[in-house]
Amino acid sequence: MNKNNQKRGMDNQKSTKLWGGRFQNPTSDITERISSSIHFDYRLYKQDIHGTIAHVKMLNRIDILSEEEMRNIEKELLSIKKDIDENKFEFSASFEDIHMNIEAELINRIGDIGRKVHTGRSRNDQIALDLMLYIKDEGGEIKLLLKNLIDKLVNLAKEHIDIILPGYTHLQVAQPVRFSHYLLAHTWAFIRDIERLNTAVKACESMPLGVGALAGVNYRNDREFLRQELGFNKITSNSMDTVSNRDFVLDFLYFSAILGMHLSRFCEELVLWSSSEFAFIRLSDSVTTGSSIMPQKRNPDIAELIRGKCGRLYGNLLSLLTTMKGLPLTYNRDMQEDKEPLFDSVDTVKLSLEGLFEMISTMKINTERMNTSICSNFSTATDLADYLVMKGVPFRESHGIVGKIVQHCEENRINFFNISVEELQKFSSVFKDDIVNILNPELSTERKISSGGTSKKEVIKQIEGINRKLMEITIV
Amino acid sequence: MNKNNQKRGMDNQKSTKLWGGRFQNPTSDITERISSSIHFDYRLYKQDIHGTIAHVKMLNRIDILSEEEMRNIEKELLSIKKDIDENKFEFSASFEDIHMNIEAELINRIGDIGRKVHTGRSRNDQIALDLMLYIKDEGGEIKLLLKNLIDKLVNLAKEHIDIILPGYTHLQVAQPVRFSHYLLAHTWAFIRDIERLNTAVKACESMPLGVGALAGVNYRNDREFLRQELGFNKITSNSMDTVSNRDFVLDFLYFSAILGMHLSRFCEELVLWSSSEFAFIRLSDSVTTGSSIMPQKRNPDIAELIRGKCGRLYGNLLSLLTTMKGLPLTYNRDMQEDKEPLFDSVDTVKLSLEGLFEMISTMKINTERMNTSICSNFSTATDLADYLVMKGVPFRESHGIVGKIVQHCEENRINFFNISVEELQKFSSVFKDDIVNILNPELSTERKISSGGTSKKEVIKQIEGINRKLMEITIV
Amino acid sequence: MNKNNQKRGMDNQKSTKLWGGRFQNPTSDITERISSSIHFDYRLYKQDIHGTIAHVKMLNRIDILSEEEMRNIEKELLSIKKDIDENKFEFSASFEDIHMNIEAELINRIGDIGRKVHTGRSRNDQIALDLMLYIKDEGGEIKLLLKNLIDKLVNLAKEHIDIILPGYTHLQVAQPVRFSHYLLAHTWAFIRDIERLNTAVKACESMPLGVGALAGVNYRNDREFLRQELGFNKITSNSMDTVSNRDFVLDFLYFSAILGMHLSRFCEELVLWSSSEFAFIRLSDSVTTGSSIMPQKRNPDIAELIRGKCGRLYGNLLSLLTTMKGLPLTYNRDMQEDKEPLFDSVDTVKLSLEGLFEMISTMKINTERMNTSICSNFSTATDLADYLVMKGVPFRESHGIVGKIVQHCEENRINFFNISVEELQKFSSVFKDDIVNILNPELSTERKISSGGTSKKEVIKQIEGINRKLMEITIV
Amino acid sequence: MNKNNQKRGMDNQKSTKLWGGRFQNPTSDITERISSSIHFDYRLYKQDIHGTIAHVKMLNRIDILSEEEMRNIEKELLSIKKDIDENKFEFSASFEDIHMNIEAELINRIGDIGRKVHTGRSRNDQIALDLMLYIKDEGGEIKLLLKNLIDKLVNLAKEHIDIILPGYTHLQVAQPVRFSHYLLAHTWAFIRDIERLNTAVKACESMPLGVGALAGVNYRNDREFLRQELGFNKITSNSMDTVSNRDFVLDFLYFSAILGMHLSRFCEELVLWSSSEFAFIRLSDSVTTGSSIMPQKRNPDIAELIRGKCGRLYGNLLSLLTTMKGLPLTYNRDMQEDKEPLFDSVDTVKLSLEGLFEMISTMKINTERMNTSICSNFSTATDLADYLVMKGVPFRESHGIVGKIVQHCEENRINFFNISVEELQKFSSVFKDDIVNILNPELSTERKISSGGTSKKEVIKQIEGINRKLMEITIV
Repeated sequence: MNKNNQKRGMDNQKSTKLWGGRFQNPTSDITERISSSIHFDYRLYKQDIHGTIAHVKMLNRIDILSEEEMRNIEKELLSIKKDIDENKFEFSASFEDIHMNIEAELINRIGDIGRKVHTGRSRNDQIALDLMLYIKDEGGEIKLLLKNLIDKLVNLAKEHIDIILPGYTHLQVAQPVRFSHYLLAHTWAFIRDIERLNTAVKACESMPLGVGALAGVNYRNDREFLRQELGFNKITSNSMDTVSNRDFVLDFLYFSAILGMHLSRFCEELVLWSSSEFAFIRLSDSVTTGSSIMPQKRNPDIAELIRGKCGRLYGNLLSLLTTMKGLPLTYNRDMQEDKEPLFDSVDTVKLSLEGLFEMISTMKINTERMNTSICSNFSTATDLADYLVMKGVPFRESHGIVGKIVQHCEENRINFFNISVEELQKFSSVFKDDIVNILNPELSTERKISSGGTSKKEVIKQIEGINRKLMEITIV
Repeated sequence: MNKNNQKRGMDNQKSTKLWGGRFQNPTSDITERISSSIHFDYRLYKQDIHGTIAHVKMLNRIDILSEEEMRNIEKELLSIKKDIDENKFEFSASFEDIHMNIEAELINRIGDIGRKVHTGRSRNDQIALDLMLYIKDEGGEIKLLLKNLIDKLVNLAKEHIDIILPGYTHLQVAQPVRFSHYLLAHTWAFIRDIERLNTAVKACESMPLGVGALAGVNYRNDREFLRQELGFNKITSNSMDTVSNRDFVLDFLYFSAILGMHLSRFCEELVLWSSSEFAFIRLSDSVTTGSSIMPQKRNPDIAELIRGKCGRLYGNLLSLLTTMKGLPLTYNRDMQEDKEPLFDSVDTVKLSLEGLFEMISTMKINTERMNTSICSNFSTATDLADYLVMKGVPFRESHGIVGKIVQHCEENRINFFNISVEELQKFSSVFKDDIVNILNPELSTERKISSGGTSKKEVIKQIEGINRKLMEITIV
Repeated sequence: MNKNNQKRGMDNQKSTKLWGGRFQNPTSDITERISSSIHFDYRLYKQDIHGTIAHVKMLNRIDILSEEEMRNIEKELLSIKKDIDENKFEFSASFEDIHMNIEAELINRIGDIGRKVHTGRSRNDQIALDLMLYIKDEGGEIKLLLKNLIDKLVNLAKEHIDIILPGYTHLQVAQPVRFSHYLLAHTWAFIRDIERLNTAVKACESMPLGVGALAGVNYRNDREFLRQELGFNKITSNSMDTVSNRDFVLDFLYFSAILGMHLSRFCEELVLWSSSEFAFIRLSDSVTTGSSIMPQKRNPDIAELIRGKCGRLYGNLLSLLTTMKGLPLTYNRDMQEDKEPLFDSVDTVKLSLEGLFEMISTMKINTERMNTSICSNFSTATDLADYLVMKGVPFRESHGIVGKIVQHCEENRINFFNISVEELQKFSSVFKDDIVNILNPELSTERKISSGGTSKKEVIKQIEGINRKLMEITIV
Repeated sequence: MNKNNQKRGMDNQKSTKLWGGRFQNPTSDITERISSSIHFDYRLYKQDIHGTIAHVKMLNRIDILSEEEMRNIEKELLSIKKDIDENKFEFSASFEDIHMNIEAELINRIGDIGRKVHTGRSRNDQIALDLMLYIKDEGGEIKLLLKNLIDKLVNLAKEHIDIILPGYTHLQVAQPVRFSHYLLAHTWAFIRDIERLNTAVKACESMPLGVGALAGVNYRNDREFLRQELGFNKITSNSMDTVSNRDFVLDFLYFSAILGMHLSRFCEELVLWSSSEFAFIRLSDSVTTGSSIMPQKRNPDIAELIRGKCGRLYGNLLSLLTTMKGLPLTYNRDMQEDKEPLFDSVDTVKLSLEGLFEMISTMKINTERMNTSICSNFSTATDLADYLVMKGVPFRESHGIVGKIVQHCEENRINFFNISVEELQKFSSVFKDDIVNILNPELSTERKISSGGTSKKEVIKQIEGINRKLMEITIV
């Protein structure tokens, strides 16, 4: 449904509203335009109908609805759902939101009995339920996308385990690392993202339905039944808090923001490494685009877009944080502003994860250029210092000696990797012939045997650790 | 056009792209989904066509297009515009964006000659132009809405000039003020908003078209002609900066954020004052809604929604600020993320201004309740202190004396406004019979004769000042 | 140490730096001023020394330091710590940061052997460790403050269990609730805050020390020993991720932001309820302040300040999110910007929690005014509608009937709570004499028997639930 | 003064407060700790004393202070200022803020007459004044730093006008540009920053003093005299707005955020270009630092720190935006939270500008590496397409032809810059011998003769434009 040409009810008489008893005058057009949310909250129709069916079953259990009434309502709700699924349903802005659109249509189809479904609930608890169900549904899909991405990264790591990459700090070549080790570094961030997503989804595990508008309802409704029916772990404990709380939406937006930050870092590197100056990778045609002007361009647009989308993920988080600031309990209409940032972050996260997956699945790796970068710098200078330490020179002193050697090489344009023992001995007599292998990049990585280091054995151990961890956190 | 059921081109072969020469393989589906922007940037079609027509005229001036070619292209572009106006145009995601959709359709309708329109420009300068034209267009409409709001506030101020309101600091009754003075306080904030909007629009006064992709173009195009044709004050001076710059979008988003903050403050008061505890105003049925549960409710939803929408206005600003952080010059695809926050802030600002206008136009003022608040507090205690000062008591000392009197009244439940001279004299012998009028709220406002104070004469002077100011800033 | 008159080393020759070997020229003054962090990171001295002692013990275990060296270093480090504790230590900006300040002083006191402590670690893993230890330390203190606050709220709830408060939605009186129920609503938010804090602290449970600068170190250091010594649950698995990761700081800043939001909502109500129009509570002299001008003022400054401080908690979160956006792996100096927001959020959270505790501990409750608000509105209108439902009227219809009654009362200034049966019967013949108790506010709360509702029994059950939950989450 | 060991008054009896008359009980310790602001607002002492002296002169003009009283007060205030300048003044947290600290000390030194200085003003207008004066003062200094930076950039542009740099879009080599042109692109952004700063400072041109707490004061004070004395353009027009308004602080924070964004972009490039892969520049020893581990490292720390500090500039803006959201008029204590973000942004902006100046002043440019990047890519491919256009081939067609040529070169590892006419003619018979110079990078820049293009003549024109503009905007 388009915001601009949405079908609007012809009639905004309050008498047609489900809450209009006490009002004499119609709402104004601008009120309809500001307060209607159906053009975005239609996305919750599945969850809304799901929740209403459970509610109706509960009303039957406590003898407010007969067996037959319950069945008829359920049947009609499912038929409405089908119509929406098939794009045959006409939403109306004059019914404001998804709850009222569905309820009005239900009454339209089934008559007065439809008016009973709102017994013992309010839109305040209903929307809390819909949002939680929505986050649980989408959370599941996103977790799958994250898992696929991690699997792909792990597979790439295995496949390319022998490729050596210049490792950077401050974007200056620092020490050689395995390319696989680098890929796994990002993987661990994504593993934390799944954990953070689990936390956000867990925040949706207290079933809110049945607390009424704010104070509770006037009879022993069966919230425990609702919990089971709707698949929650527990029920909320305080009716006022239940309708005031949007922490669980914020938790999801925060998860998205951190994920967006991780993606922006990865994509920054993909952009960097696709530049002709680095050229460590070549992104495939399938994820690059050209220029309408410059015929030679192959732009890493997808990487840039994902990096850029970090902005909207932060913006969505701050948007809802701002809205919630300083609101008195319980429900305030401001809280309607929770949905658009949520929907947008869900869409953005899914698109971004798919985009990154496509990029890394299809990119080509240029080991030659990686090697060039390693060898035209001083990437194993630390190994040289460590060599001196091994021979008994205090670390700070050996650091100083190697610093002088580096300076000397630079000034005299000496290739550090080809420096002779004689030359080295000018700086310290500790250097001996056994220095030769010290400067070799791959051997350098193999010396990083500390736990979590970049030696092959450690990397393999790491992959096992990721697989275990993944098992543990994705089954939840 | 709905994001979810947008018509997508069947074919994503890069050969059909306007930039696909060097590519062998098609873009992947996810690339199309991430990088397509037509589902939101279609909103720029007027500006895009406007800019292209000016560009075509310029190409004719420098003999790249013949008179006839120019006329044919212009005619066809206007016919495309009409089709879009009338909702008859089918946008295609495979043409990515509004520029390409229109150009492709032009070529489709007019043949090869359509391929010439992109001579001497790139999408990089084209989008900068479209955005500036858009902000100028929408800025004009928003300025009008702001002006209407200010006019309404000024009229209300005139109408209600004799109503006395308790003025608050820290939400504690402080001193009586004129209700008109209060309305004008908000008015001055909106006047600053117009000035801030003018600044944002002024930032769109450097015509960007004709700088090419980043370096300039290979012939003396006539950017001065473009400037005149498109109604700008000057032309941009550096081609790289021209395509790197999004400051002008941020300036608009910042204007919107501050306006949103002002609106949130006003609406906070409307919410407060609609509560039964304050009850200074009664919002009309046209802007309040009921509860699906509680039959008595008249909720100030519009005020709450506008207050809540402050969140998205902040979020939009931070979204683009984040996206732009750390981008190297010049154009990067991340910058495509500039449009949705802009469009959303434009829509939000317009809706909010209309909503506030409706609320204040239709609200009822309850002077009785204002008076109750004034008189059940110590709103003129400062006048009492000032009385002592006038009689020669140093201010800090008289402040202390009145503090004691207030404490005494509270403890003994004495109505401050009825306190006798005898009682007062227990605290200071300076009090005389002439104290009587000192405590009267309206007389208290009349004593506030300092420039910008709340006395009637000063308020009237203020209204004149606003009218002058408004003239000055809206003609710009 | 004051930012403005910090003692700066006289000498910025790079030769005195611990990393200066390859440099010929000194750093400039502005470089010192920008890059020095000692004026804020001195706060990490305890954690830094704690980490270094563990590291030194580990170096002894792997035979890099002798028993004696280890003991001497430890002794000297503890003596440095004592000097800092007692404010006798002079930090120097020319040593840049807390790590270098302590190491330089160690070398100064103990000679060359001090140079060995940096073996097998880098500042990159060292700072990750310090920050994690810091968050764990401060997290513990904050958890205690939260627990105290919750205990106080629970005690107040018990104490005031019979007080009836008007419950609000949209700041309009909605339904009567127990004051205790309201207090517990905030309590549940704080319980979630403890859970969120636990999550943030849990994110600090992977011991980072011993991964070197980015690639690992050249020998089997004993990270498992470090883990035990420093009290962590596990060790980090990837050296590059270890030094790139600031998620755990962001998790803490996010916890703080949400807590700040909760506090801002509570304080908004304290401000509102302290107003003379609501007057539900009276804050004590100990947390209110006066005006330098208006002698009568008792301003709820502390509530306002805590509400206002929500801004800095959001700002701190955004600040670090922005800094981290788009950074390539691994350590970049930008990340130095992580500390000030963290320290500020820690301080702000602690101050705010103490401030709220003081306010609620000392406030007076005005049940009379609460009752006035309940009874001058239609707070039990929903009960009237529920009455009709109980008698078989469909909910939507009974809602409409009561709406009309409310309208009738308002127009004719009839006190809803005193309305006669005869009057009611004009709107529906279903009303009978048993309507009498329906409108009583306390009885209304007692009917809210649904789970999580505001009836006394449910509230008592809730308190038990909170106590169980608190036990569960604070022992972690 | 350190937040942690600030001297606090021994006594928090409210009787010693300047507003304590009506209070019976002292403020609690936590109240003092939360509400005291002297540990940061001491920075306003110059402005505060400046404002008070003007106020005292005004009080003399309207016969509230005698000539002698005025002179004595002024003398004493100047002596207090001198003591603070010389670090001899002991601030006390029990006097809360800078206003009270100075006033209390004045009374302490000069006796009761000191109590008169607060006549006709409140802290509400006083703080508005102090902040405006502060922004004007600091704004002036920052403008100078910006101007120096621009001058340096212009000089570098002149000096290096013949250096050719590969211009990038999407971080892919796009077209050759002059290095000077690139420097000037950043310069234009800084010029806009000065304009934005001017706007922010202009927002401080309405003199707020003399409006009292919120309503005005009880006599014709001479605000016009204050305006002249304090050097403002006009006076504020509405007392309530005057004490509610913090737009001018936000305007400054926004200016800072945009500047921070510009700096982050520039610094991103400095970091990139200092990498060994780009190596277009070499930062001097004076702005790079080493690693405590890796002896070879020369890290661009200052560039990284400035880039990272963009985060706090955004955070400060959001912080105050959040604080101001939803505050009712007029002054609320929340607004005390305006100062720390302001001070921090001032400090950050100044440090960052100085840091960037130092970096660009001392960096070495490596034209050889720039040339390598230009020539190992297809930077003049667009020129080839333009060649075809010049010969009559429609742009879209020529774009496609060149795309194929690029693809061909890549696949066959042909150096694009050495491609023969024969080879080219295989793709289009339009190519002739005159193609030779088309591919030359410098000649390519010389063809960019459109206004704002990168040809030498246009760049020189641009420099003149900048000089004119600078004259215009810095004199304001």
